[in-house]
Amino acid sequence: MLGGEGHSDPWVKLVDYALVSLITINCVFSILESVEDLAIVHGHIFHAFDHFSVAVFSVEYVLRVWTAVEINQPRFRHSFWGRVRFVFTPMAIVDLVAIVPFYLGIFFEVDLRAMRVLRLLRVFKLTRYSQAMSIMIDVLRQEARSIGAMLFVFLVMLVFVSSVMYMLEHPRQPEVFSDIPSAMWWAVVTMTTLGYGDMVPATVAGRVLGACTAVFGVGMIALPAGVLASGFSEQLRRRREEYLESVDKAVQDGRVKPREKRRLEATRLALGLSSEEAARILEYGVKGGQMHCPHCGELIHRNPAP
Amino acid sequence: MLGGEGHSDPWVKLVDYALVSLITINCVFSILESVEDLAIVHGHIFHAFDHFSVAVFSVEYVLRVWTAVEINQPRFRHSFWGRVRFVFTPMAIVDLVAIVPFYLGIFFEVDLRAMRVLRLLRVFKLTRYSQAMSIMIDVLRQEARSIGAMLFVFLVMLVFVSSVMYMLEHPRQPEVFSDIPSAMWWAVVTMTTLGYGDMVPATVAGRVLGACTAVFGVGMIALPAGVLASGFSEQLRRRREEYLESVDKAVQDGRVKPREKRRLEATRLALGLSSEEAARILEYGVKGGQMHCPHCGELIHRNPAP
Amino acid sequence: MLGGEGHSDPWVKLVDYALVSLITINCVFSILESVEDLAIVHGHIFHAFDHFSVAVFSVEYVLRVWTAVEINQPRFRHSFWGRVRFVFTPMAIVDLVAIVPFYLGIFFEVDLRAMRVLRLLRVFKLTRYSQAMSIMIDVLRQEARSIGAMLFVFLVMLVFVSSVMYMLEHPRQPEVFSDIPSAMWWAVVTMTTLGYGDMVPATVAGRVLGACTAVFGVGMIALPAGVLASGFSEQLRRRREEYLESVDKAVQDGRVKPREKRRLEATRLALGLSSEEAARILEYGVKGGQMHCPHCGELIHRNPAP
Amino acid sequence: MLGGEGHSDPWVKLVDYALVSLITINCVFSILESVEDLAIVHGHIFHAFDHFSVAVFSVEYVLRVWTAVEINQPRFRHSFWGRVRFVFTPMAIVDLVAIVPFYLGIFFEVDLRAMRVLRLLRVFKLTRYSQAMSIMIDVLRQEARSIGAMLFVFLVMLVFVSSVMYMLEHPRQPEVFSDIPSAMWWAVVTMTTLGYGDMVPATVAGRVLGACTAVFGVGMIALPAGVLASGFSEQLRRRREEYLESVDKAVQDGRVKPREKRRLEATRLALGLSSEEAARILEYGVKGGQMHCPHCGELIHRNPAP
Repeated sequence: MLGGEGHSDPWVKLVDYALVSLITINCVFSILESVEDLAIVHGHIFHAFDHFSVAVFSVEYVLRVWTAVEINQPRFRHSFWGRVRFVFTPMAIVDLVAIVPFYLGIFFEVDLRAMRVLRLLRVFKLTRYSQAMSIMIDVLRQEARSIGAMLFVFLVMLVFVSSVMYMLEHPRQPEVFSDIPSAMWWAVVTMTTLGYGDMVPATVAGRVLGACTAVFGVGMIALPAGVLASGFSEQLRRRREEYLESVDKAVQDGRVKPREKRRLEATRLALGLSSEEAARILEYGVKGGQMHCPHCGELIHRNPAP
Repeated sequence: MLGGEGHSDPWVKLVDYALVSLITINCVFSILESVEDLAIVHGHIFHAFDHFSVAVFSVEYVLRVWTAVEINQPRFRHSFWGRVRFVFTPMAIVDLVAIVPFYLGIFFEVDLRAMRVLRLLRVFKLTRYSQAMSIMIDVLRQEARSIGAMLFVFLVMLVFVSSVMYMLEHPRQPEVFSDIPSAMWWAVVTMTTLGYGDMVPATVAGRVLGACTAVFGVGMIALPAGVLASGFSEQLRRRREEYLESVDKAVQDGRVKPREKRRLEATRLALGLSSEEAARILEYGVKGGQMHCPHCGELIHRNPAP
Repeated sequence: MLGGEGHSDPWVKLVDYALVSLITINCVFSILESVEDLAIVHGHIFHAFDHFSVAVFSVEYVLRVWTAVEINQPRFRHSFWGRVRFVFTPMAIVDLVAIVPFYLGIFFEVDLRAMRVLRLLRVFKLTRYSQAMSIMIDVLRQEARSIGAMLFVFLVMLVFVSSVMYMLEHPRQPEVFSDIPSAMWWAVVTMTTLGYGDMVPATVAGRVLGACTAVFGVGMIALPAGVLASGFSEQLRRRREEYLESVDKAVQDGRVKPREKRRLEATRLALGLSSEEAARILEYGVKGGQMHCPHCGELIHRNPAP
Repeated sequence: MLGGEGHSDPWVKLVDYALVSLITINCVFSILESVEDLAIVHGHIFHAFDHFSVAVFSVEYVLRVWTAVEINQPRFRHSFWGRVRFVFTPMAIVDLVAIVPFYLGIFFEVDLRAMRVLRLLRVFKLTRYSQAMSIMIDVLRQEARSIGAMLFVFLVMLVFVSSVMYMLEHPRQPEVFSDIPSAMWWAVVTMTTLGYGDMVPATVAGRVLGACTAVFGVGMIALPAGVLASGFSEQLRRRREEYLESVDKAVQDGRVKPREKRRLEATRLALGLSSEEAARILEYGVKGGQMHCPHCGELIHRNPAP
């Protein structure tokens, strides 16, 4: 999943693995540091490692900005503005957020807890090494309309259910269902079938409404899940198809030249396909997915893609 | 999602956005007003804003009824009966419910809490600006038979499980499983996997039945979710196809005239499709997605729609 | 959903609706009678209605057995053995269970609570008037192998997880995780994401195992749900296809004769299709789903069924 | 599901059923023994049965290793190294784990609770008699990439949500949200919609974050469920297709010889298909489900498999 699986250069791989390990250990340490007993005993280790990490991340950040012009994209080509543009890409911002709080902490008095949380944002640095997050974001973008429609209905029902519940339960449990925002907390906990049990309707009418809310909520919440699941497989299919098109272009002259191979590899990495999948698609593309009538030899149709 | 996204007239858009904002702020204020501390401090703002909203909604209601005859539908064309018919459409009733409680509150002594809940029904006014609710209702209508079948099995199992649970747990926890309606509340909370924890079986037999109910309930509740999810995508597909038919009609003479374009836009709005989707379907309709007859080689029908 | 929707004879419909109402009211009364306050005040009404119901159900049962020979099935045709065979059909047993406890209660001293539960089994009499339960049972039978496989894995994991959890949590919470059966109750409550909160791991190792169990349980429980949901739509598709075949046979000579129409109606009822669906399939069957090349007139292929 | 359903030799079946029963009773006894009251009263029965089981399992293990060379696979053929290789297969390790703790317990002082848990690992011996586990493992392997991607996003969100929640809730509930690992426990319980209720946010900001986490978690957790469900049906389809290929080979000469029949049966068992399914595929394979070329009219390929 992680660690620059696509690069063929062993040194690039090594650096990638080292950085992934550093980020992971860093997050684990930040989490453990919040446990008081551990902080007292091993505090100095956590501190030393944090200083070391910030040093590495700082060097990494400077190098990334410096080499931004080498990225094969026209908008980063300009020696000054290219680097400025790079600084404002989402991944570069994540990299900056990973180190800035430390330097700010030197000059200003900062709340320790807030510092620790900011330090944990470093976990997002890991997303650079995984296509997972990018696929998720593409799925959300692709199904944004459906998801938006469902969230809208969810919100309208939330307001409706919690206001009626407030009316029904407030007289009986004035401490628990004290106001409509509290009732909304109950409604979310019920509609997502969380059911903490900190707020439970006690009147008959409240329980009937609660039962309907629970049944309705199950359907309401399961809907986006179904849409997301089908969107996810659709997204994977599209990426495979896109790769197949590149393969088709590459094999048009009957064979795959080294230059074409390198370009295919780049496409594969950009689409986040595994090597096995890519190999399967390549084989399909080279063989031609075509089917010929075994009797008259004419092309009939292309088999469905793998 | 919201706010008259389809209208090209900027003034219509502006009014729509203003109304959506007004309804939203109104709901937020009604919710906040139920919090005692906020009501004491900011009560006068909430009141003033409520009066202002009712004034705007009243004007809106009168104007909507007045202009009902302009709607491009025969049943609203009659200058008197058309308006009467309009008053009884669901959206007009929602609009009326949004203002009537206020005027009633002037003449009668009304419970404040009930008033607030009635005021929150204004949230349904938002559904006018979103196709989401109408799609949901169409999905429910389309899958009504399946959903009904599942609800029936759900209810039968509910009665059965809760009566057996009552028999098993009543002797051990007479206060908790006090009667069958209580046991039904437990059964709903368990079958929807809510699990508040306010009622938990304590006997061995009760726990075995509880475990079976939970496992069974998961399947039972997930079924309608699956059906709804597939119904939702089916509904979207149908709407796209309906739009494609309009496109087909429009491009029959080879090009899309301005009058046809406006009609297509109206269809798009009525079906709740996004502009991007509509553009994709239009492109497909114009290019045609042709298939040729294997016998005479002539064009027969199109590839599957996008 | 309920109430003999398929019969054209209005008297049959009336009797069906009356019986459905009787069963429903009977169940509601049995549920309410368990509430002590209501039992004290309205006890005599509940009793009178119960006596009346038993009388009606007894007459219904005798008549059903008596007229069993009229059912259009060879195995019920024999004047004595046919009726005996009928008595042992599931629905006839349900009918018997609905009345026998009452008569037993006259001769023997029976626990009141057990009586009430037995009386609530009458709810299963409703399944006669709905195809829902039969579709569910068919789905379960169709997917029995998959469901069985999943239940097996579920049970193995249940035993494994609960025994490890017992080992981890027993020393810390000897009262709560007192033995492995208790830990199994926790495991079921966690794997179904119920989460009552009556048993919660407190050690670090227990919480890590609990987290894994919850994540694993979600996938484990969602699997059969997905399988059941697809099995459900598959079952509906099969029934539609079966009906289409009958339609195909009926329209072979170009028109649907009255005798064929009646037979189709019987098939529709047996398959539990709605009238609208049947009409849609009939129209498709009569028109012929065929597609002809518009140029050379040859048949190309049958369109997908509705 | 269980019990060597595929073997035609009645003695093999008998032994299989006996072993399955022995393992099942053994697990049930191990579970019951953890209940103190039962251990005191029936302890000697549990002990005697455990000794008997270990004896049987030991004999079984020795026989299995001894006869390993008879397995129709080249890597087990060598009279010494074949058996050594067999000892390191997963099922042989499970068999060893089922008996070793008992012998170790004779020589060393072992914690009773740990012993019982090790004894319950015998439940995995059952997986030999069911294809369920192997199908599950194949599904997981097949969808490993998707599942991995989702787990990665799940973990990143988990770290993010719990660190922010810790910051928000720690000042208000320092005992409950005492450190980030505790907050992570809350986050898992919330994202899986378990909702034990042992940790509940109390601040407004915490509740808003909790609500978002719950809604987001529902989608996040439902995704792998959908992927697994479709992977499961895909896996079943693949196995049916593999069987169809064997059938195709067997029927090439027009009929199925006894030797081919036995080989087909072996394939069926290896793929975990039911006899009915196999029969349906066989019938399909023999009949052929042909399609003809639209150009020269000759047979090309088959209709989609059943």
